[in-house]
Parts: sequence; C-alpha cells; structure tokens
Amino acid sequence: MISVVILGAGNVATHLYKAFRNAENIEITQWYNRSRSAISSYANTVEITDKLEDLKEANLYIIAISDDCIAEFSSELPFKDRFVVHTSGSVAMHDIDKKNQIGVFYPLQSFSKNAEIDFSEVPICIEVYEKENLQLLKDLAQAVGCKAHKITTEQRQTLHLAAVFVNNFTNQLYRIGHEICETKNIEFNILHPLIEETAKKIQHMSPFMAQTGPAKRHDKKTIKRQLKLIEKDSHASIYKLLTASIKSTHGFNSPKPIKTTKD
Amino acid sequence: MISVVILGAGNVATHLYKAFRNAENIEITQWYNRSRSAISSYANTVEITDKLEDLKEANLYIIAISDDCIAEFSSELPFKDRFVVHTSGSVAMHDIDKKNQIGVFYPLQSFSKNAEIDFSEVPICIEVYEKENLQLLKDLAQAVGCKAHKITTEQRQTLHLAAVFVNNFTNQLYRIGHEICETKNIEFNILHPLIEETAKKIQHMSPFMAQTGPAKRHDKKTIKRQLKLIEKDSHASIYKLLTASIKSTHGFNSPKPIKTTKD
Repeated sequence: MISVVILGAGNVATHLYKAFRNAENIEITQWYNRSRSAISSYANTVEITDKLEDLKEANLYIIAISDDCIAEFSSELPFKDRFVVHTSGSVAMHDIDKKNQIGVFYPLQSFSKNAEIDFSEVPICIEVYEKENLQLLKDLAQAVGCKAHKITTEQRQTLHLAAVFVNNFTNQLYRIGHEICETKNIEFNILHPLIEETAKKIQHMSPFMAQTGPAKRHDKKTIKRQLKLIEKDSHASIYKLLTASIKSTHGFNSPKPIKTTKD
Repeated sequence: MISVVILGAGNVATHLYKAFRNAENIEITQWYNRSRSAISSYANTVEITDKLEDLKEANLYIIAISDDCIAEFSSELPFKDRFVVHTSGSVAMHDIDKKNQIGVFYPLQSFSKNAEIDFSEVPICIEVYEKENLQLLKDLAQAVGCKAHKITTEQRQTLHLAAVFVNNFTNQLYRIGHEICETKNIEFNILHPLIEETAKKIQHMSPFMAQTGPAKRHDKKTIKRQLKLIEKDSHASIYKLLTASIKSTHGFNSPKPIKTTKD
C-alpha cells in the first residue's frame, strides 16, 4: 500500500485524485489545498485540509500546483526528509526544496476540467534524486495502470516542448479549421473523422510517411487557390509557414524520415 | 444496383475500388487507367482497361486523377450525356466537360497508400448540376455506409482548406514533435496517447474549450524557456506564430467560442 498526500486542486491534482481513489494499492492520506472550498465537495471520501501544519505522514507528497509556485511552496512544507515530487513537464526537479527527498511524477497528457480521461493510457515520466525512491514511483504508476518512463530533466523538458507542438498547437489548428468552416456555414463535425484518422495514422506509421496534401505534392496551383480563399491574415501566415515547413521536409533535398523502432 | 466505372489508379481510386467491391449494391463495370500496369494486379477481380474507347456504359463514371488533369481528361471521354463526377476537394464541378452530366463525389478523408481506412466513417461531400442525379450519389454513398453531405462548390473548397489545416498541417506538427524527440533520444511513441486524446477531445468539445498549455495561460516564463530549448530556427518560427495565434484566440479581448449545434 502506498500512502499519498495530494497538494493542490487544479486539473492534474483532480485527475490524480480520481485515478488514485480507484486504485487498490494506493491510500490517499490527505488532500491539501490552500483554499478549502475548491476540494470541499470531496470531504466525504477523503480527508481534506487547508493547513500545511496539519499534513500527516505519508510515503509520498505530490505537488500539483502552478509551475511558478512549486519552488516556494516546497520550501514552506513543515517537514523534512520525506519524499516530495512535482507533476510539471517543465520545472526542474531541483526546484523542489532539498530539505526533502525529491522527484518528478509527470503524467504526459492534457487534462481539461470537463474531459474524462482513461488514466491507464497516460505515460508517466518519472525522475528521482535519491535512487532508492525510483521503485515507489514505478509502483505508483503501475497501481493506476500506467506505463512509467524513467527520463532525465532535459528529456522531460524536451518532451514537454514536443507536447506543446502535438497538442496545444494542433488544437489551435483545429480551432482555425472550426473558424474557416464557420465562415461558410459548414458544420465543423464533418471534419471529425479526418481529425481522428490523422491522429490514428501516426500510431503505426511515422508522420513523415503519413503526410499527404498540396504542400507535400508541391502543388503550386492548389496552394495559390487556397491562399486566395483565406479571409484572415493570421490564418494566411500560418498557412504559408506550415506549407513551407512541409515543403522543406519533403523537398528535393529533404531530410530522410527519422528511423525509430516503431516505423 | 449502381454500375460504376473508376477512372484513375491513385490512392482515392484504389480506396474507392476496395469500398465498392465490398458493397452489395454496387457493380464495378470497369476500372480504367492510362497505364495498365498500375491496376493489372486487380485484373482477376474486375475488368480493367487502358483504352478510353473501350469504356462501357455505366450509371456513373468517377474521375479520380490529379486535380490538374481533370478538365482535360473529362473532355477526352468518348461519350456524352452520361453522368461523370470527380473526387477532388478543390476543383470546380464545372471543370468537367459539359458534354456529359456533371457532379462531385468528394470523400473527405486523407488516403495514404499503406493505411487501411474504415470507409464507412468517411463523410462524402456531393454536388450535382442536374438535380435528378443527386439521388444516385446519395445512394452510392449509402451503399458503402457513408454519410453524404450536399454542399456547394464554395463550401467544398472551404472544407478542403480547413482539411489542410486539421490534417496536413497537424501532421507536420507531429513530424516536428518527432524531430524534437529525436534530438534527445526520446521515443516518439510516448506522445501517441496525448496525440490521440487531443483528437478525441474535440469530438465532444469545441477546440476553443479544449485548449490548454502555456500560450493559453499566457505563461511567459514557460514560453521563454521553451523557445530557448528549440534548436531549429524553423521550429522556433512555428512556435512563435502558433503561440501568438493561441494568445489572440484566448486573450483578454479574445473572440468568443464559436457556437455550433454540438458544443
């Protein structure tokens, strides 16, 4: 049994709480938040507190708060030599105050408040300073059905950067698609199957191999016609830049596809 | 029973052939391609030809060739008053020679050579000049299990533009994510669940509501740190432009989310 204290009440904290609550080998000792009201609706199922001095002993303390507050918050914890991790993709492990044992438990997924997630599909990137703590994080990931990946701080920050491209930026392209449809009274959901297929395709084929469309074909006529169709300058800038990017990837002197074990 | 002649042997033609072959109410009368060798492997299951003058009578002729060749090819067809459609997202219906009855049968999906597709999930955008032909295209779509959407040429071209954003450009963001992972020896497939979730989320929530990440939060510190991490100038340009785009969508004077029936 792993005993855990969750610190914070944002999207990651809430998703962790739900995943831990359903896991057999995890006991949520307490859930702390500086404002009690954000978690008071859970008071029947878990001990909640808004006082750091009331924190109980546990195997692990998980800080799931805004990146900018992690360092300071960790220094305010009223104990030492316990095991404290954060859940951030970009904050250094060493930002956590060294009076405690430190580590990272970073779930590589995008958590929105109202979207349910199959937590067992979420890869967990883990990092520890004290080697003997590695197993605990592996066990915790396993207890919620997740695959754990031991990576370095640099790798985690790189993954977080890549995640911004494939998640936040991709979602913004969906938004632009939505806007473009809207101008001509087209239901955006006609595009849903294409969006799903685009994401599914690269689960078994590299994005290099999966590419199609006018930019890859260097089809100047279609590109010119589409640029004329675009009504917003900001959309045109993105169209031009990403078209150039695809052309350079698939040009005559293009870089080769990246070889990975799965391609 | 709808009798069909397929003209061309590219990705769309091949996927149509496979979908039609499995449909009960469709008879593939012939498959034409200017080079016989591209389709000769199908000669046992369908009549193939490379001679336009050998084309037989059918309810429908489907031109599935490069956009640029459609107009000229349609004028070379050695018959008139028959029903001829193309499958392009961007070519005008009226580019088809008017000696025949004309229309469009545009499957809104990205067809790669080696990716199998569940054709029944593909929305078919249809257009006809002679109203009495509309039902035939609807029936054809239905025979392969697809939903048909009657749209105008302008709407189809707009959809095709939106599709470039949500499919080709999104796939290029996946490629960049792949490149970024590669620089630090990270397996790109750690990102697969995030990519799938990002696509799945907007099936029941607008992209506006689904957005997360540093740009949406106007988190300058993380944005600055990530820009420092980026090694390629071309990646940095895309990072900056899409960050600005998200900020403008989710800024203090940001546009409201688009209301559609599904959101």
